[in-house]
Amino acid sequence: MAQKRLGKQTIKLSNPPSMLAAAAVVGPKEGEGPLSAYFDMIQKDDYFGQDSWEKAESKFVEEAVKRAISKSGVSITAIDYMLAGDLLNQIISSSFAARNLEIPYLGVYGACSTMAESLSIGSMIIDGGYADHIICATSSHFSSAERQYRFPLEQGVQRPPYAQWTVTGSGATMLSATGNGPYITHVTTGKVVDFGIKDANNMGAAMAPAAVDTITAHFKETGRSPGYYDLIVTGDLATVGKEIALELLKKEGLDLQNNYNDCGCMIFDNIKQDTHSGGSGCGCSASVLNGYLFNQLKHCELNRILFVATGALLSPISAWQGESIPCIAHAVAIETKPSEVK
Amino acid sequence: MAQKRLGKQTIKLSNPPSMLAAAAVVGPKEGEGPLSAYFDMIQKDDYFGQDSWEKAESKFVEEAVKRAISKSGVSITAIDYMLAGDLLNQIISSSFAARNLEIPYLGVYGACSTMAESLSIGSMIIDGGYADHIICATSSHFSSAERQYRFPLEQGVQRPPYAQWTVTGSGATMLSATGNGPYITHVTTGKVVDFGIKDANNMGAAMAPAAVDTITAHFKETGRSPGYYDLIVTGDLATVGKEIALELLKKEGLDLQNNYNDCGCMIFDNIKQDTHSGGSGCGCSASVLNGYLFNQLKHCELNRILFVATGALLSPISAWQGESIPCIAHAVAIETKPSEVK
Repeated sequence: MAQKRLGKQTIKLSNPPSMLAAAAVVGPKEGEGPLSAYFDMIQKDDYFGQDSWEKAESKFVEEAVKRAISKSGVSITAIDYMLAGDLLNQIISSSFAARNLEIPYLGVYGACSTMAESLSIGSMIIDGGYADHIICATSSHFSSAERQYRFPLEQGVQRPPYAQWTVTGSGATMLSATGNGPYITHVTTGKVVDFGIKDANNMGAAMAPAAVDTITAHFKETGRSPGYYDLIVTGDLATVGKEIALELLKKEGLDLQNNYNDCGCMIFDNIKQDTHSGGSGCGCSASVLNGYLFNQLKHCELNRILFVATGALLSPISAWQGESIPCIAHAVAIETKPSEVK
Repeated sequence: MAQKRLGKQTIKLSNPPSMLAAAAVVGPKEGEGPLSAYFDMIQKDDYFGQDSWEKAESKFVEEAVKRAISKSGVSITAIDYMLAGDLLNQIISSSFAARNLEIPYLGVYGACSTMAESLSIGSMIIDGGYADHIICATSSHFSSAERQYRFPLEQGVQRPPYAQWTVTGSGATMLSATGNGPYITHVTTGKVVDFGIKDANNMGAAMAPAAVDTITAHFKETGRSPGYYDLIVTGDLATVGKEIALELLKKEGLDLQNNYNDCGCMIFDNIKQDTHSGGSGCGCSASVLNGYLFNQLKHCELNRILFVATGALLSPISAWQGESIPCIAHAVAIETKPSEVK
């Protein structure tokens, strides 16, 4: 087995890359939510001065990336790769942002698992000695996602109570070979898991088994127990998916009752903000990680987290053709003290 | 600068990963072309027994991956990652194929540059010590691409003479930490280049500057000259783009007149097969590399090639919204004798 591999899905970084800086740029609704104090920028205009939601989403990415670069103090010419992707067809939000940045660019796609996927690949590239600085980013936009995946907003279709609200926002991390942490210490890569759910409004239920699969693999392969982490946080299962995940994890012998949360349950006040089951979209886990969680790690309010971003790999066409929803979850362990790394 | 980095865009692999096996599975039209002898499977039915072109495309991926695995002799459970992506919205061809394979899966998106992108990331992951075996794959399908990017086939829209013909097919490479080559020795990652072309039928012209940018960076950063390679081969510029690339390269002081070709010019007989400017799509460079070129490398008919897959990062929505076409090219150097690696 390859030297830095702990098992089928998990690798351990020899010299854990540091999250040198992070930035989260969100839309107006996210700025009214419980995490508003932790975002770098709250855009009052969800068009971001553009003439379409798709162009606006790309601006969110560009702004988050530029802010993360600026906060890191790294010159843009010293960045070796940009690793990014998003929910829009052909990941145009990321690619059009990359056009304005002139950084060698590797597009990735893991639906809402993209933040963890970009950190996973970025960490291996840095730790492997191929790069000093990598910017990892992703985004989503409520209005571009609704019209691409569900119905045009103008149609005013009623949403079921278990539906989620796609986060408008982008998060970016500057990963670095040097720095004072928090550090990416382990990466657990997901397999595609499909439990046969076909309701594109019920993403939390569809994605929960994938999250459970990856979390279970992480603990099995690292030998860690759930208590090792201050927080195990999934991407965007929201209230329905979170309960399913907790139940399925219990069946696997993992009790996460005390230290588990989901970014989709953290970003909105579902009652006051009428966001039904909670937040979703690549931008959900990306803005919670690069806004709130990064801040908590920097101030040692949290010292060890397992960040598990979850993605539903469907397309509207696959749904129309009667296919169920294949899902995936990628996990990265983020820790403030690499010396304590097991 | 990171230890394995030669410059802004190029890295050198310390222990070059080996292309342990490769497979190309193509459709009927590709099977009638000049490279027919080199494909592992020619599917006479471009529906591949499925009820939609999208499902068929996914079958092409699954078949190519399974054949590459089988030829490599590696057990499917010993494969550490699958790196794949394709042209369909949300890369469903790759993700649905991954669902049936149970290999840890990292989705990538570089439009038609995806074969080189997956080999680039895969090589760094293996050489970095995180994996022993990685399967890299991509695909395209004429009929699914036409209806997604251009017009439904049923509409019978006339195509301009400079239009290209999307290849129906998939190619897969089994990359390995051990093996007898050919080896991936260097990776040059592209930046997004946009020369302002807006005609989605004229991809060759749009992508040529990106190819030139990456090829120029490769020679500058490796210190190699074009004569070092037996063949420098771009992905799918086809006849129009190939001529533009040659001209632009000449302006950069690089004369590739004698050892340059393009997969889009190789896969079809444009006159007999009425394929206008030539082949395109992720499956074009993927099937030429994993079919014809791999065979030539294995038999030492070619010993050093620079494989430069080119991608147009547009979406139909970005085009409808008046955007030009951002393009990218990723290059990998493939050599049969690692000892001769400079």
